Amino acid sequence: MSKVAWKGGALLGPLPPVMVSCGDGVQDNIITVAWTGITCTHPPKTYVSIRPSRHSYPIIRETGEFVINLAPASLCRAVDYCGIYTGAKVDKFARCGLTREPAQVVRCPIIAESPLSLECRVTDVIPLGSHDMFLADIVAVNVDDALLDEKGALHLNRAGLLAFAHGEYFALGPRIGKFGFSTDKGKKKKRK
Amino acid sequence: MSKVAWKGGALLGPLPPVMVSCGDGVQDNIITVAWTGITCTHPPKTYVSIRPSRHSYPIIRETGEFVINLAPASLCRAVDYCGIYTGAKVDKFARCGLTREPAQVVRCPIIAESPLSLECRVTDVIPLGSHDMFLADIVAVNVDDALLDEKGALHLNRAGLLAFAHGEYFALGPRIGKFGFSTDKGKKKKRK
Repeated sequence: MSKVAWKGGALLGPLPPVMVSCGDGVQDNIITVAWTGITCTHPPKTYVSIRPSRHSYPIIRETGEFVINLAPASLCRAVDYCGIYTGAKVDKFARCGLTREPAQVVRCPIIAESPLSLECRVTDVIPLGSHDMFLADIVAVNVDDALLDEKGALHLNRAGLLAFAHGEYFALGPRIGKFGFSTDKGKKKKRK
Repeated sequence: MSKVAWKGGALLGPLPPVMVSCGDGVQDNIITVAWTGITCTHPPKTYVSIRPSRHSYPIIRETGEFVINLAPASLCRAVDYCGIYTGAKVDKFARCGLTREPAQVVRCPIIAESPLSLECRVTDVIPLGSHDMFLADIVAVNVDDALLDEKGALHLNRAGLLAFAHGEYFALGPRIGKFGFSTDKGKKKKRK
């Protein structure tokens, strides 16, 4: 292949287009965000980067809490809608047919239709330019019991998650392998 | 659906399992990382979170540079391998049949077989627990010209990118829509 040299750009993918819910029981909102990721395993930490002009920004800033709701491909239209319209003018829960559900730990609602929701508490707000980064602890997880097997193990592949890459939404396709498959030799089968 | 309440965990997906190349011309390495994301659009910023025990950690820490090489599904075995074995004992380029190519701006090699590589300069190192977060500017991009149309527009969907979710690798499946499709009404067609 032949490479073309470009200047820097935010060209990473595929990313999770998640619905971030926020609020304190008085006001709430949903904003779709793809600028998110895991930043630490132990303790579990994540972030969302949000423009200060967005309606959800001051809500998260003031409450110090948000919920990352993973998005299945079946909710793609709601995901797109919640990334475009402002919560200042519309109740996105009502408009998208989404249901508020109480979280375990934070005051924000979780989205009942999401198969897996991460409750987050902000630890740092880092201004970076167009976006401020909200670094956060993942303090609780809510998971659809249909993703669990009889032993309680999580099968996230059952969620039919949505992916986002350079302005386009994709369903996840075929499973190619499991972490560690490149080492699978006969002798590895003895390991637990 | 019925929800099960768990304590916090690093359960976000789908994520990009990228091959991070690093080095200074004397020593180099590749480490696969899924703890990455975009943190800012303007200027373009990203991060990778890496355990201090990893072979690539001191290389990135000392050089202040790394390259994020996006991974197509066809390279899944190399992606998995580079996430497991240590560069202290093996040349992962040679072992995985990957080719070093000079970057535009940084001293690290880019991976020739990657369809899109982001050259990054570290701005901050933030210790978070098991992982340290390397916040970085994306200072240059290298893109396979097969992803560009005759007008030079990027079609990242042609890259056949790999996704990672809870320990499993997936190909991207069908394209569901384009950002903004939930607003597509007749009147929108007038917009540019």
